[in-house]
Amino acid sequence: MSMVGAAALGAKAEAMIAELAAISAEPDRLVRLFLTSEHRRAADLVSRWMTEAGLEVREDALGTVRGSFGAGPKLLIGSHIDTVVDAGRYDGPLGVIAGILAAREVIRSGRTLPFGIEVLAFGDEEGSRFPDTMTSSRACAGAFDPAALQGRDADGVTLSEALSAYGKAPDDIASAAYGAGDALAYIEVHIEQGPVLEQLGRPLGIVTGIVGQTRLRATVSGEAGHAGTVPMRLRRDPFIGAAAMGLALERIALDNSDDGMVATIGRIGAMPGAVNVIPGRVTFTVDLRSASDAARLAALKRFRSEAEAIAAQRGLQTDFEMVYEAPATPCDAHLQDRLAAAASTIAGEPPRLPSGAGHDAQIMAKLCPSAMLFVRCKGGISHNPAEYASLADMGAAMSALIRLIEELDPASLQ
Amino acid sequence: MSMVGAAALGAKAEAMIAELAAISAEPDRLVRLFLTSEHRRAADLVSRWMTEAGLEVREDALGTVRGSFGAGPKLLIGSHIDTVVDAGRYDGPLGVIAGILAAREVIRSGRTLPFGIEVLAFGDEEGSRFPDTMTSSRACAGAFDPAALQGRDADGVTLSEALSAYGKAPDDIASAAYGAGDALAYIEVHIEQGPVLEQLGRPLGIVTGIVGQTRLRATVSGEAGHAGTVPMRLRRDPFIGAAAMGLALERIALDNSDDGMVATIGRIGAMPGAVNVIPGRVTFTVDLRSASDAARLAALKRFRSEAEAIAAQRGLQTDFEMVYEAPATPCDAHLQDRLAAAASTIAGEPPRLPSGAGHDAQIMAKLCPSAMLFVRCKGGISHNPAEYASLADMGAAMSALIRLIEELDPASLQ
Repeated sequence: MSMVGAAALGAKAEAMIAELAAISAEPDRLVRLFLTSEHRRAADLVSRWMTEAGLEVREDALGTVRGSFGAGPKLLIGSHIDTVVDAGRYDGPLGVIAGILAAREVIRSGRTLPFGIEVLAFGDEEGSRFPDTMTSSRACAGAFDPAALQGRDADGVTLSEALSAYGKAPDDIASAAYGAGDALAYIEVHIEQGPVLEQLGRPLGIVTGIVGQTRLRATVSGEAGHAGTVPMRLRRDPFIGAAAMGLALERIALDNSDDGMVATIGRIGAMPGAVNVIPGRVTFTVDLRSASDAARLAALKRFRSEAEAIAAQRGLQTDFEMVYEAPATPCDAHLQDRLAAAASTIAGEPPRLPSGAGHDAQIMAKLCPSAMLFVRCKGGISHNPAEYASLADMGAAMSALIRLIEELDPASLQ
Repeated sequence: MSMVGAAALGAKAEAMIAELAAISAEPDRLVRLFLTSEHRRAADLVSRWMTEAGLEVREDALGTVRGSFGAGPKLLIGSHIDTVVDAGRYDGPLGVIAGILAAREVIRSGRTLPFGIEVLAFGDEEGSRFPDTMTSSRACAGAFDPAALQGRDADGVTLSEALSAYGKAPDDIASAAYGAGDALAYIEVHIEQGPVLEQLGRPLGIVTGIVGQTRLRATVSGEAGHAGTVPMRLRRDPFIGAAAMGLALERIALDNSDDGMVATIGRIGAMPGAVNVIPGRVTFTVDLRSASDAARLAALKRFRSEAEAIAAQRGLQTDFEMVYEAPATPCDAHLQDRLAAAASTIAGEPPRLPSGAGHDAQIMAKLCPSAMLFVRCKGGISHNPAEYASLADMGAAMSALIRLIEELDPASLQ
């Protein structure tokens, strides 16, 4: 068991999170983008913490700070230190700091582990600067796509140029990948970014997987007309059709809530968009996610079929353009169980839940067995300065992580 | 009966409509705004036509061209010669030209009428240039609001300045009003601007009244959130609430379709408006019209009540801001019957229908008994270059108008 109690770990983590949050491109809000001077300062601070914890620090070709300890295949523990614009303080840094503090406790205990540890501080998870996202973990997993190097930020700077300016050689990216057998497993501690654990009254949760996702751009076409002169029964109003489709979409997601399905219409517009004109065309977005790819694809099929029926009934045409699709990434079942066993000694048997948001763990799962430990956050709020996780909950997460490290049998993962 | 047949009248009207349509501020689309050089040229052309028809022409202080014939209280026959931007050719001009051609036929017949005739070509019905609309007919009806003189066009020119530049004296506007007993009645021939007559397969229709109207700006507030991490059952999604409200609004209008009720959501937006964010707020417009003010107000009450119930069920807040309201203007019942009798000899008993659009007739109804004769238009299309009325239908309308003039008993209207 750890030498330091959960409460002290939580307080220490909160102090480190606050120190990291002071590193921002703007005085009044938190903005820390990939390969900027803020990234440099944050990486240097993380590097110092890792060294103080007893880890041997290096930086890879994408600027990921990597602190290692011990010999043999490595248990990787990581998250990211970049942020969205006007970010909260916990999304990313908590997982990096949890890894550093857990490693520190294990190293201080003098215990000999049957595997190595490497703590990873990725620099690009949010995708706030360049078009691609999670390039840092992609490089580690050997899944980096060189086409990403040509993506440009808002100022027209390519990722390749920004890497060079940061002192990295784009040609070295392949060297960042772990070799076969080097990575034992990957663990990520992260705030939930949703309200489920708070609603359940539980500090920790085991992530069953990262949901798969489909994004559609829907267009419903009818006939524009004068709002005063076209009787209701002669209308082909695409907005009323889209409204019925929105309710159908909600019903489908509710019917599949056992798979953690969620569906969102985030953007909608009616053309021509005048108060006294019946719209001729309505466009809206659909974001559909589920932990089950089969359930997601079946829901998509049902939605399109119900939307077509609504359109046929109302004399409308529909067009659904698929703009993004990603399959679900299940977390490793055995690693989930080990993480649950470790967490249950701290805070009782933890609930299991899918992650509706993307995480580096979904990339690292291409490399090795991966799992995530979610920490309750206040009101489910994230990507917002109001983001908050309590000292007690963070302490519980780190205690669970330490216990996992102490108890993990590397043979069970191979 | 008229000396010229309906077919010849229709062909003549079409030629005059084409000549007027050539007067535009733009070469590739029809734009003829109030008090512009195009208005001047159109007024001069109308004035020449009136003189050729045997009418005595004058222009009032708002630039309305007024061609009169005969003595005694006047039967007024009018419509407008201004247009929307990218207009059709029939909306307005048909009514003015119908008045001129009908007057010409009556004058040529040598018949002595027990009343005078005055054909009116209003210059401001569409309200395309200044904030106020129907100022021309308001001046004739003695209902002009001097505050309108300070309204500015897109270039910052006030109506007062534009009138002076057009050679009119704003101080003379009161003189444009008809005196007590000067106006016997007002008749307006106009394309339907809707699809009802075409659906019924009938060339002409009698307008029962101009509908009353309420416009709302609706705001539905919920809770923004991550599209991936907030489970369906924990959401307070204002778009799905607005969708349910849209369907409720449609149901209410359908339930009141006997009163010619129509309801339209022409504009909608979701904030913040990102594909992967549950909206926090949705705004939309409501345009509700009915020939019955009581039915409209009851429908409004029912809509607010149903919207509140939807909001309460979904944890949403609603705000409805009334941005415009106008009562219904019924057409004169006796004049409707006279117009129907005249039309029935030409094209069978005409259907009666409300006008969902506003017209000068609703202003002139403040002055004297008023009625409107609708002419079938292709596809119900208006405010669009595709606007079209057939020669035969226009001819039928003019034949009916001539018959009304010949048969009208002025004593029946007093």
